[in-house]
Amino acid sequence: MFKTTVMIEWGDCDEAGIVFYPNYFYWFDSAFQRFLRAHGLSQREIRKRFGTVTPIVQAHADFKAPARYDDELEIRVTIRGDGERRFRVDYHLESGGKVIATGHEVRAWAKVAADGGLKGAPVDPEFLSILGAAS
Amino acid sequence: MFKTTVMIEWGDCDEAGIVFYPNYFYWFDSAFQRFLRAHGLSQREIRKRFGTVTPIVQAHADFKAPARYDDELEIRVTIRGDGERRFRVDYHLESGGKVIATGHEVRAWAKVAADGGLKGAPVDPEFLSILGAAS
Amino acid sequence: MFKTTVMIEWGDCDEAGIVFYPNYFYWFDSAFQRFLRAHGLSQREIRKRFGTVTPIVQAHADFKAPARYDDELEIRVTIRGDGERRFRVDYHLESGGKVIATGHEVRAWAKVAADGGLKGAPVDPEFLSILGAAS
Amino acid sequence: MFKTTVMIEWGDCDEAGIVFYPNYFYWFDSAFQRFLRAHGLSQREIRKRFGTVTPIVQAHADFKAPARYDDELEIRVTIRGDGERRFRVDYHLESGGKVIATGHEVRAWAKVAADGGLKGAPVDPEFLSILGAAS
Repeated sequence: MFKTTVMIEWGDCDEAGIVFYPNYFYWFDSAFQRFLRAHGLSQREIRKRFGTVTPIVQAHADFKAPARYDDELEIRVTIRGDGERRFRVDYHLESGGKVIATGHEVRAWAKVAADGGLKGAPVDPEFLSILGAAS
Repeated sequence: MFKTTVMIEWGDCDEAGIVFYPNYFYWFDSAFQRFLRAHGLSQREIRKRFGTVTPIVQAHADFKAPARYDDELEIRVTIRGDGERRFRVDYHLESGGKVIATGHEVRAWAKVAADGGLKGAPVDPEFLSILGAAS
Repeated sequence: MFKTTVMIEWGDCDEAGIVFYPNYFYWFDSAFQRFLRAHGLSQREIRKRFGTVTPIVQAHADFKAPARYDDELEIRVTIRGDGERRFRVDYHLESGGKVIATGHEVRAWAKVAADGGLKGAPVDPEFLSILGAAS
Repeated sequence: MFKTTVMIEWGDCDEAGIVFYPNYFYWFDSAFQRFLRAHGLSQREIRKRFGTVTPIVQAHADFKAPARYDDELEIRVTIRGDGERRFRVDYHLESGGKVIATGHEVRAWAKVAADGGLKGAPVDPEFLSILGAAS
């Protein structure tokens, strides 16, 4: 499990004074990048080490309570395999002890061919292991 | 059913040259606003006419194919009741005849009290009828 | 001179109910892309035809009046050389006959070397001519 | 002088692999909010304590070098009066000891009238003093 925080900024909120919801997905993705980084990985490193990219297949969020400008969000991230060729990243967002949102992304494991084309492949167990996925 | 289009701009894409996925949710929300506008409604008008706001409860997207800078997205929007106090907006995105993504939002129907607080209430049938929801 | 319009969406505005200003620069850039597209160009086409990219060097905006959700912005775009190795794109934004903002971008003309490095070069007069720059 | 850092995320970069420039203005604004917060202020607190808001009048940036995904930006912020009714916030962005961009915002000092209208007024010296402006 990985934890990170983001501060909700003025520009993240809408006229109702609450977070404009697409920003939650930006924070999901940012938390995923920080999760990779904390384990010596990155989009570029994944491509270099495994010859793959991780295209998004599904994104989902359930919004439990509004969050506002100046609130700090704590984001908890976990990862697990999801079938042979996909993995799933789960997100849990709290602010001041209150659950704000939960959600997930499903991403594919895709080999980059010499011509730049992508081809689905079984997720490398080493990748999941580095990130602490339960086996 | 309502149709609108958006042009994918340079700033919408990431280093992989494809749309950075949170932008799809921005387009979902924008398409919903245009859908309202096409029927004489808006967030402000809904609040004035019905005394309600429509907080987001759930957002979901399935990504079928990547879209790129200079692609034009056609977005189809439909709406329907989802239980007594919620409604659901479905989105279907194509580009050049190819399905790019599908998804939906679930929104609550919430009365704004005198003190600014929100309280869930049955979705006004007039609202759904104006927007062409199947009954 | 090139004209385009954008609709100000819910997510573009902040808690004060007016456009969050960085979005104006997104619209500047989008208007530039549409300007290129209207003349058969794009970032990719510029690279293919001239072997160059156009990195941003300066961006500036003066905000004259606030704009709000549901306002339509009319953007006028003009281009001109700015010294030997740069060009300048000017933006004029109105809504309902009222000036909302004016601004500009300065962009460099940079040759892409075989190793991917960039090197400033005199702006190709054909590029400026295609886009209707006054000589 | 106030310092803060931001991590450049995947979604902040464009197809060229460098920051899409409107994001720099988002970071300017975010750094301003953090600067306020570090001194016990916020947009809401300014309105409460001084009865004013601070609408943006001008924004400017000069881009010196590209920044990329995974780079950390250090932002330095300073503030000073700019005529009687305006103040100016200057930004200096570095990454790894290299100047990435410099820029500024000019903001007005505007009293909120009972009817919600705004009226320019002399910047409160206490505001500038709290934020460490040179007098």
